[in-house]
Amino acid sequence: MPRFALKIEYHGAPFAGWQRQSSQPSVQGAIEDALAKLEPGPHTIAAAGRTDAGVHARGQVAHCDLGRDWDPFRLSEALNYHLKPAPVAITACARVSGDWHARFTATSRRYLFRIIARRAPLVLDAGLAWHVKQPLDAAAMGAAARHLLGRHDFTTFRAALCQAASPVKTLDRLEVESVDTDHGREIHLHVQARSFLHHQVRSFAGTLERVGSGAWDPDDVKAALEARDRTRCGPVAPPQGLYLMAVEYPDNPFAPTD
Amino acid sequence: MPRFALKIEYHGAPFAGWQRQSSQPSVQGAIEDALAKLEPGPHTIAAAGRTDAGVHARGQVAHCDLGRDWDPFRLSEALNYHLKPAPVAITACARVSGDWHARFTATSRRYLFRIIARRAPLVLDAGLAWHVKQPLDAAAMGAAARHLLGRHDFTTFRAALCQAASPVKTLDRLEVESVDTDHGREIHLHVQARSFLHHQVRSFAGTLERVGSGAWDPDDVKAALEARDRTRCGPVAPPQGLYLMAVEYPDNPFAPTD
Repeated sequence: MPRFALKIEYHGAPFAGWQRQSSQPSVQGAIEDALAKLEPGPHTIAAAGRTDAGVHARGQVAHCDLGRDWDPFRLSEALNYHLKPAPVAITACARVSGDWHARFTATSRRYLFRIIARRAPLVLDAGLAWHVKQPLDAAAMGAAARHLLGRHDFTTFRAALCQAASPVKTLDRLEVESVDTDHGREIHLHVQARSFLHHQVRSFAGTLERVGSGAWDPDDVKAALEARDRTRCGPVAPPQGLYLMAVEYPDNPFAPTD
Repeated sequence: MPRFALKIEYHGAPFAGWQRQSSQPSVQGAIEDALAKLEPGPHTIAAAGRTDAGVHARGQVAHCDLGRDWDPFRLSEALNYHLKPAPVAITACARVSGDWHARFTATSRRYLFRIIARRAPLVLDAGLAWHVKQPLDAAAMGAAARHLLGRHDFTTFRAALCQAASPVKTLDRLEVESVDTDHGREIHLHVQARSFLHHQVRSFAGTLERVGSGAWDPDDVKAALEARDRTRCGPVAPPQGLYLMAVEYPDNPFAPTD
């Protein structure tokens, strides 16, 4: 059966997460239902990152197996037609080999966590960022973030329900960017690793916010990491600030061919 | 009566525009209603730019006169409390002199027009940008934009209903920025002038899109401008791409005082 890679954007708010569930809307379910309009199902698609309820994606990647050898552009157009009005869009589509796997072939995942620090409620960014009402010290957050870089036992930053075999992961990037705009200060956390533990990025975001607001020192994050104790984590940040931005593969299946 | 300047962010979708109307929701009406919760009305506020239905603002500015000498921070907090759940937020507030006027003291208005050029439907940016399905040539759009800079009779780019005394305006900035992201190409039009004609920025955006898509040459925009003929304008772009970003004054009333 021909296999296709799909690059997917979605707004997380209406979904119980990526993963198909029997009684709640999911992103996987929306796409599998759209595939069933094209070819009789059942269809089961696999994704690079099983995002939680409310988490957004700019560049989720999944793959599907179909009976027909679809033209990739026509397949993405047909899926987008049937996905409406769900806030899910196929932004790229490519034919891949039968042993290519959206999850297991991936070499890296990149996330963005958006924080807007201001008193006024969010309006244009409502549901699209974490609203923090106190000012944040981005330099202190950056100093704390540097303690987390590299290979560590991240037990402190791992949800109780996490199913990963090991709490040891290598964090390749955790950069704190301060974006000053006319309408307030935004903090962007740029996070990249081969793979992540459950709630790891949101645990980082909630912990770094404690540092930015002055409640914690940067060194408290180092101590929390070294304690390997979930109770030492800051609050888990809410999902609406989190975006799965991109998934990397040894060969980018979506690279332009011309 | 003490006068206060308000900096305002809003999502344009639910409103018939800035200006108060008897039977439809307006941004002005929402703020005046919130003011009436603080002090008995009627209140009439004046804004720097009377944005159209569906147009967003990051930095609209208005002023109001109140009986009490409010602390500006407490006034903004109280207004934000009473504005909920309308998508309108007071992002700054300042005490100004009685002869300061949000509209007449303003020396410049700055707008952003966001275009996203891609096949897939907009999801995270739905309602927050103009979706154009064909690729756009940003360099051609930039060449066309340069014909519009400076002092001209902008009759071609003026709505029939425009109430300005003269069609002659000086355009200080019309910059075409191409922003390439993982999820597609965005075109940002940065536009600045002392004042604008009705529908002027959206007429620019719709005309420049024609150039970007190859339907018009940059020189066609020059000819359309010089014709001073409304029928020579491109289509007026839809409101959801337009943001009133900032209003400038000889002295910024919102400048930090410490």
